[in-house]
Amino acid sequence: MKLFDGGRAPNPRRVRIFLAEKGIEVPIEPVDMGEMGHRSNAMTSRNPLQRLPVLELNDGTILTETVAICRYFEMLHPQPPLMGTGALGSALVEMWQRRMEFHLFLPVAQVFRHLHPAMKEWEVPQVAEWGEANRPKVMEFLKFLDGHLADKPFIAGEDYTIADITGLVSIDFMKPAKLTLPEGLDNVARWYHTVAGRPSAKA
Amino acid sequence: MKLFDGGRAPNPRRVRIFLAEKGIEVPIEPVDMGEMGHRSNAMTSRNPLQRLPVLELNDGTILTETVAICRYFEMLHPQPPLMGTGALGSALVEMWQRRMEFHLFLPVAQVFRHLHPAMKEWEVPQVAEWGEANRPKVMEFLKFLDGHLADKPFIAGEDYTIADITGLVSIDFMKPAKLTLPEGLDNVARWYHTVAGRPSAKA
Repeated sequence: MKLFDGGRAPNPRRVRIFLAEKGIEVPIEPVDMGEMGHRSNAMTSRNPLQRLPVLELNDGTILTETVAICRYFEMLHPQPPLMGTGALGSALVEMWQRRMEFHLFLPVAQVFRHLHPAMKEWEVPQVAEWGEANRPKVMEFLKFLDGHLADKPFIAGEDYTIADITGLVSIDFMKPAKLTLPEGLDNVARWYHTVAGRPSAKA
Repeated sequence: MKLFDGGRAPNPRRVRIFLAEKGIEVPIEPVDMGEMGHRSNAMTSRNPLQRLPVLELNDGTILTETVAICRYFEMLHPQPPLMGTGALGSALVEMWQRRMEFHLFLPVAQVFRHLHPAMKEWEVPQVAEWGEANRPKVMEFLKFLDGHLADKPFIAGEDYTIADITGLVSIDFMKPAKLTLPEGLDNVARWYHTVAGRPSAKA
């Protein structure tokens, strides 16, 4: 098994944090995304959609999509559970994972991809107006999240889950997107401090 | 249990098709999205993100996010499996579900929301250039999908899954988005004919 990893990019990091929380070691094959390594012939033959991370199993089976790769490891190594347990528990974690993804991770990504000069070759065409339109979406969701976190330690409730990983990576992704966490979101700040302080955050 | 349903909108339909394939009947509470019923006080108190569908359990627990609602029913009623079985099977279905979602469903939605005059109050601001930029993304992915479907009946392989539901609903969503399935994608056309012909497609 081999994990083709994209360094500082947010999706590869989500998988690395997930593996670190599980205590799973997987051989890593670094791919230099700055040099467009994810678009090389060798990587395109593995993932024609040219995204990272890519997990290659020993029999050559390819798994792509961050959350699908996490699901694979969750089912092989259920402890500690990071995707919930039982029907309702699993569904609630998936609900929060998706809320973080669609309302925070994706809007931050749009700001970054459509406004950052370094993304010119990545996002064609860059549409500055669309990048700008995503700034208030990020801020509105963060306000909602602050209310949600008022009475619970983690995003899906009592336990650290994949929803916290998506959240942490999204907040860190705000930096290159030149977005600042607004003052006064004390619950988000407290939660971020907790999850960013776990050893897995360095993965 | 009660499912707050949004009629013709694509996400509510994904859940209805999923339930029809499972043979599960859930009491439906229609919400008129044309009249902005999903933004009413009653619905906002259930889902502050003002999206449908919303599943309300008997104890008042709220589940939102289409795929999370599907996961709940999949775990309660595993037969027939629509989200894969085993670690690798589940991960591969999730991979294809997400590929369909991020590379087909979302780009079609962007074309619709940013270019259709009826969406003016829904997507603020509408960014026509961004809507246009998504047309080629849809077409490129459909070409990739056509190659993928050359040697298999369904999107994730031998069995009908949630990835086919996301695919079917995305293709049908192309109509209000004024996107046309290009000629010559015979495998996509054959697959679409099969999945659109199942009784569940009328759900």
